[in-house]
Amino acid sequence: MGGSLAKACKDRRLVAQVIGIARREETARQAEVEGIVDWGTTDLDVGIAEADIIVLATPVRTILTQLDHLSRVIRRHCLVLDLGSTKLDVVQAMNALPDHVQAVGTHPMCGKEKRGLEVADAGLYMGAPWVLVPLLRTTPTSLRLVEQLTIGVGAFPLVMDADRHDRLVAAISHLPYALAITLMLTAADMGNDDPMMWQLAAGGFRDTSRVAASDVTMMMDILLTNREAVGGLLEQAADNLRKMASYLASGDEASLRTTLEAGHKLRTGSGK
Amino acid sequence: MGGSLAKACKDRRLVAQVIGIARREETARQAEVEGIVDWGTTDLDVGIAEADIIVLATPVRTILTQLDHLSRVIRRHCLVLDLGSTKLDVVQAMNALPDHVQAVGTHPMCGKEKRGLEVADAGLYMGAPWVLVPLLRTTPTSLRLVEQLTIGVGAFPLVMDADRHDRLVAAISHLPYALAITLMLTAADMGNDDPMMWQLAAGGFRDTSRVAASDVTMMMDILLTNREAVGGLLEQAADNLRKMASYLASGDEASLRTTLEAGHKLRTGSGK
Repeated sequence: MGGSLAKACKDRRLVAQVIGIARREETARQAEVEGIVDWGTTDLDVGIAEADIIVLATPVRTILTQLDHLSRVIRRHCLVLDLGSTKLDVVQAMNALPDHVQAVGTHPMCGKEKRGLEVADAGLYMGAPWVLVPLLRTTPTSLRLVEQLTIGVGAFPLVMDADRHDRLVAAISHLPYALAITLMLTAADMGNDDPMMWQLAAGGFRDTSRVAASDVTMMMDILLTNREAVGGLLEQAADNLRKMASYLASGDEASLRTTLEAGHKLRTGSGK
Repeated sequence: MGGSLAKACKDRRLVAQVIGIARREETARQAEVEGIVDWGTTDLDVGIAEADIIVLATPVRTILTQLDHLSRVIRRHCLVLDLGSTKLDVVQAMNALPDHVQAVGTHPMCGKEKRGLEVADAGLYMGAPWVLVPLLRTTPTSLRLVEQLTIGVGAFPLVMDADRHDRLVAAISHLPYALAITLMLTAADMGNDDPMMWQLAAGGFRDTSRVAASDVTMMMDILLTNREAVGGLLEQAADNLRKMASYLASGDEASLRTTLEAGHKLRTGSGK
């Protein structure tokens, strides 16, 4: 996410200078060589010393640690953003930043299973909704600046509060992930008995399970910072599966058809 | 499926003549005009009168009805195939065909959500596994003929028994479908409260839910002719979801990580 944003900002000349902060020296050098950043460093304090806008593009719980660190070291007026996939804990941590710091929680609704510079893509944000969660302290000027940045890389900014965001992404992002993991685990028992199963797996299986390849550390942080909303949906999904199983067991064709037609209608947007 | 096979057979000149049997006169004419068949009819008995190979490409329970009908009307030596997605009930019905009739149950592991001539695609079978289930009566010559047909349209024939086929597809095809339906139904509750949800739905949601758009009648027949295998997997999947929910509720990070890493490893084929 961070690499893609840096690349998009550089390619479109949206900012005067892009400074990359990486965990490893090698990544910082590679980003410089590939022209993804103007210069790179592994030292957070050095990297932010000259920055007007700081973008935190790490897993959610790392963002929380970084915000805690920033709250103690930021001296300059600047604007802090994050790209984390849950927002309640993040904006709470942002509230603890010094008063002279502006901050906006954000979540671009796009992404890839793979992390790292190799998959950085300046076009990643094109056409994607990008949720912005202003704090009470966020000025209209700061919010407008962030909106311009998101529009500048081709996204559509959508302003909402953290609670609403976290409930919505539980349904459209965290639940699909949990279902994809469940598909892999449930199918694996069969695949262990008969490895031919993997050879037969067709497009439907690949699509439904794709997001199970998401980065585990990133997803751990997401699920654990959205426990209540996700937990409730997992229970609901389990209930829906149990109902379908009971319709099959009892041969209740009418209820089964009603269920499948409801799902079909929701997915196709038609009553057919 | 039938239209795509007819098109592939015509394009590659695999057979002397393709006769299309449709439910509606309009479809039969359209298939002729588009050159998908040499000639079309809505009369099954007329259509099969001259056929050496009969391919049943309808929902599974319609195939069962058609086999029952064929068992009473077929006079000529010929070879009967089906393209149905479950095989136990189909090969059982094939066993009741007259002794002079050869038959092989088959299932090409490819497909589209949409049915109909409009989406007929001669390339549909390219690179797809195609399961063949011979009967006790099936001669090596008949089986070889079917293998040649599947290879002729670009597929890979795999011979196995009906029971094994039905258990495997329960895991790789029917379970993903049920999970996609479950995703739509579970998310819909949230979407009713806040329609913004649908605007936020990103690629992960679209992929995971894609097969929920599958034809309902086709899927009803598939699930109801594979009740036991599918029902067991739905219960297992519900248990897996419940476990994840309990790890979240109790904050059991170690178990949650083990679960996510197992799913990730299965999906990516890596230990990472």
